Amino acid sequence: MFGKKRQKQKPDDAVIQQLMQIVGDSEVLYLKEDLIAYECDGYTLSKGMPKAVIFVKSTKQVSDVVKYLNTVGIPYIARGAGTGLSGGATPLGGEVIISLVRMKRMLHLDLKNRKAVVEPGYINLKLTQSISDKGYYYAPDPSSQYACTIGGNVNENSGGAHCLKYGVTTNHILGLEFVLPSGDVIELGEEGIPDRPGYDLLGLLTGSEGTLGIVTKITVKILKNPEGKKTVLAYYDDIGDASQAVSDIIAAGIIPAALEMMDSIAIEGVESAAYPVGHPRDIAAFLLIEVDGIDAGIEDQIDEILTVCKNNNVREIKVAKDEEERGLWWANRKMGFGAMGAISPDYLVQDGVIPRTRLPEVLAKISEISKKYELRIANIFHAGDGNLHPLILFDASIPGESERASKAGSECLKVCADVGGSITGEHGVGIEKSAEMRFIFTDEEMTAQTNIRAVFNPEDLLNPGKLFPQPGRCVEIKREITKVVVS
Amino acid sequence: MFGKKRQKQKPDDAVIQQLMQIVGDSEVLYLKEDLIAYECDGYTLSKGMPKAVIFVKSTKQVSDVVKYLNTVGIPYIARGAGTGLSGGATPLGGEVIISLVRMKRMLHLDLKNRKAVVEPGYINLKLTQSISDKGYYYAPDPSSQYACTIGGNVNENSGGAHCLKYGVTTNHILGLEFVLPSGDVIELGEEGIPDRPGYDLLGLLTGSEGTLGIVTKITVKILKNPEGKKTVLAYYDDIGDASQAVSDIIAAGIIPAALEMMDSIAIEGVESAAYPVGHPRDIAAFLLIEVDGIDAGIEDQIDEILTVCKNNNVREIKVAKDEEERGLWWANRKMGFGAMGAISPDYLVQDGVIPRTRLPEVLAKISEISKKYELRIANIFHAGDGNLHPLILFDASIPGESERASKAGSECLKVCADVGGSITGEHGVGIEKSAEMRFIFTDEEMTAQTNIRAVFNPEDLLNPGKLFPQPGRCVEIKREITKVVVS
Repeated sequence: MFGKKRQKQKPDDAVIQQLMQIVGDSEVLYLKEDLIAYECDGYTLSKGMPKAVIFVKSTKQVSDVVKYLNTVGIPYIARGAGTGLSGGATPLGGEVIISLVRMKRMLHLDLKNRKAVVEPGYINLKLTQSISDKGYYYAPDPSSQYACTIGGNVNENSGGAHCLKYGVTTNHILGLEFVLPSGDVIELGEEGIPDRPGYDLLGLLTGSEGTLGIVTKITVKILKNPEGKKTVLAYYDDIGDASQAVSDIIAAGIIPAALEMMDSIAIEGVESAAYPVGHPRDIAAFLLIEVDGIDAGIEDQIDEILTVCKNNNVREIKVAKDEEERGLWWANRKMGFGAMGAISPDYLVQDGVIPRTRLPEVLAKISEISKKYELRIANIFHAGDGNLHPLILFDASIPGESERASKAGSECLKVCADVGGSITGEHGVGIEKSAEMRFIFTDEEMTAQTNIRAVFNPEDLLNPGKLFPQPGRCVEIKREITKVVVS
Repeated sequence: MFGKKRQKQKPDDAVIQQLMQIVGDSEVLYLKEDLIAYECDGYTLSKGMPKAVIFVKSTKQVSDVVKYLNTVGIPYIARGAGTGLSGGATPLGGEVIISLVRMKRMLHLDLKNRKAVVEPGYINLKLTQSISDKGYYYAPDPSSQYACTIGGNVNENSGGAHCLKYGVTTNHILGLEFVLPSGDVIELGEEGIPDRPGYDLLGLLTGSEGTLGIVTKITVKILKNPEGKKTVLAYYDDIGDASQAVSDIIAAGIIPAALEMMDSIAIEGVESAAYPVGHPRDIAAFLLIEVDGIDAGIEDQIDEILTVCKNNNVREIKVAKDEEERGLWWANRKMGFGAMGAISPDYLVQDGVIPRTRLPEVLAKISEISKKYELRIANIFHAGDGNLHPLILFDASIPGESERASKAGSECLKVCADVGGSITGEHGVGIEKSAEMRFIFTDEEMTAQTNIRAVFNPEDLLNPGKLFPQPGRCVEIKREITKVVVS
């Protein structure tokens, strides 16, 4: 059929034909070469080939597709920009991917009541860009915000550097429209009601990682720009001193807009990448601290932060002299993950949470894991809220290194769970950490959750195999435990 | 058996005997005269006689009681101080009330990490009182805070005047231990994890009005006292001007700690009660506005608030000159509900939410309802977050007035729902507003919620008849609709 556009040839598969009927011929990908890009999201250690990818344009299309797929028993996954870091949008194999990237409009903007209604494919950063000239912004700022969609943010309950003061996505969602796995469309919220009647389904759906329904419309809070902001950079020779400064700042009653820490390997990375700041290479860590609010209050807080940092043996400390310097510091920090590519062929981002006060001890244990698996580990830390990102550097072309990286990552999460923390702060569980859910949940706690999933998603056609340990794996784990008991 | 303590006589009832076995003889009330006080909570228009009231002292006792009651199929209700305003702890008749008031200890206080662990019977105000000398407080402040328990607050997701800036109870809960209707004990949260893995069960349980489990331990956030606070009182001749001032303050980017409004009938009440301030009797409404934070920022915000109020035709405006005056203004405001007793034999509090901008229109409609039912209605309004409390004044001794008050209340909620608001802002649905859930939820939305209830509470033994319309009533409604279609 040389010279003919390949998509014009009608496929033999009846399911593909029916999907084309619903969303249009040009909106269905089904050839292997077109599907390869959809084998995984930003978590690349697990891949699966979807049956098809379809691009929907309306809530009705989503509902019609879901109803149809129910009749033929084919599983399906909603996908935004595919920037997720835990495999939440990665197929196990054979699913239909429902891409929401063409549902990308802002439907309504209401500055007076501080809210906007967007479709799920609307890009995070675009919202702030479209209202910043009027003095407003949207608070959740994941590092991928230039590409990730707000629908994806809702499903992963995404955070970001500035979520210490302003909260993660769930704190900024006023309403959702979503399609249940039955095909029914339900709406929740809309108005800024302090305590919504009934069960908090809005909270339940937010962060459910695409396992309870497909979000088709989102009402978000927008915030007024703070009057001013100031940013401090503090260099430390000892990571214990830097950690103590973090605790002391919070104890002083200051809640900075952001309070970030990077260790020496992470610094080596960002200084080798696109936006070097000139950080000293011989420090143990730096803190990047930003305060915002009413001008009159900012100076007082900065004075107090400087005092706290000095009391904790800071080597050098400085306030950004202008917006350009502040911008450079942040560009450098936000390159954190990607910059690992400058010092390692591959890397795996982990995402544990720990009590702030346990940081020195946890870093020591991560250092032991690094030695055990012979892999370098950099640490980037949303220090204010205890969210640690160990970045495990490896080379996938060396046989066995991917597996070692994966095991090292799991051990890092175990360390976090063992000090009373958690296995994910903002990246979600997805495929990557479903087995590690057992580090923090008992059987009863897991059952309470899988029961909820079964109520929404009784046939398990929506995003199967995510978030919870797979039955096969549970059995394995249980069997091991039994062995220990028996022997 | 004259002269003998009546509780010493063993009851014949096998269930009562078994309950005594679990919690101790002295911890079970079963005689009618002892049970009367438990026929209702703070919502007095609906009453039911429990089978027994038992006082538990540990999580294990709660679990044992629940497991036992499951075997005999007897329904049960958890109850704190009984200050709820929607009948959430009111029996339908025949339930065992599990009172948590003797589980009232603080188990752990961790000022460094800003958290406290309390039992469910711990009284709200006691928490702030016990840490205020160290410079900390617990934020949610319902008007009943001198009596209500934190366990009750969790179940009702309670708010308060200062929740505008600091959020309602759900924003202050870090962890929960609760007993499921199966008797299993599960724990959620504990550490301040920004995005908890798995479904947000903590959010789901919070505000579930005692229908999903019995809370037995709570980890709450505690906050550092603000450096300073200032309070403004503004008198208005026109309620539209007062409403516009509220919108303009928020639009200016100020989030006051509290932003309250009271209308002329509410003022008549509070000026007749225990803490008269000397408010003019001929104004349409006053605003009570409090700003807190870092001293340096407060003056700027107060200046801006004064300007906004003046631009909206304020009659008189003043800043509290000292803590004593500030305290008097707040005592007067917090008497709001109770003060209705000074001007009416009975009153019914309603609890609607509306978009702030629709206030004048909603108040006009409430005024029409007042005329229609020939009942005076006062209005107290958490204006900042749109939470309106119409207080319907009536005399229960006049035949038919209770019913008229109840109908007027329902119509007020319909008005709130019709402008895009909600039927409850902070008091919950309980028995009172279960029928009104249909004002805001579709069948599909209701089913999604009742399915969740069924998963947790399959036998419907835990707090039956609350939160959702009763099947009987649904059927009635559906039948009416069918009639319309057929005719």
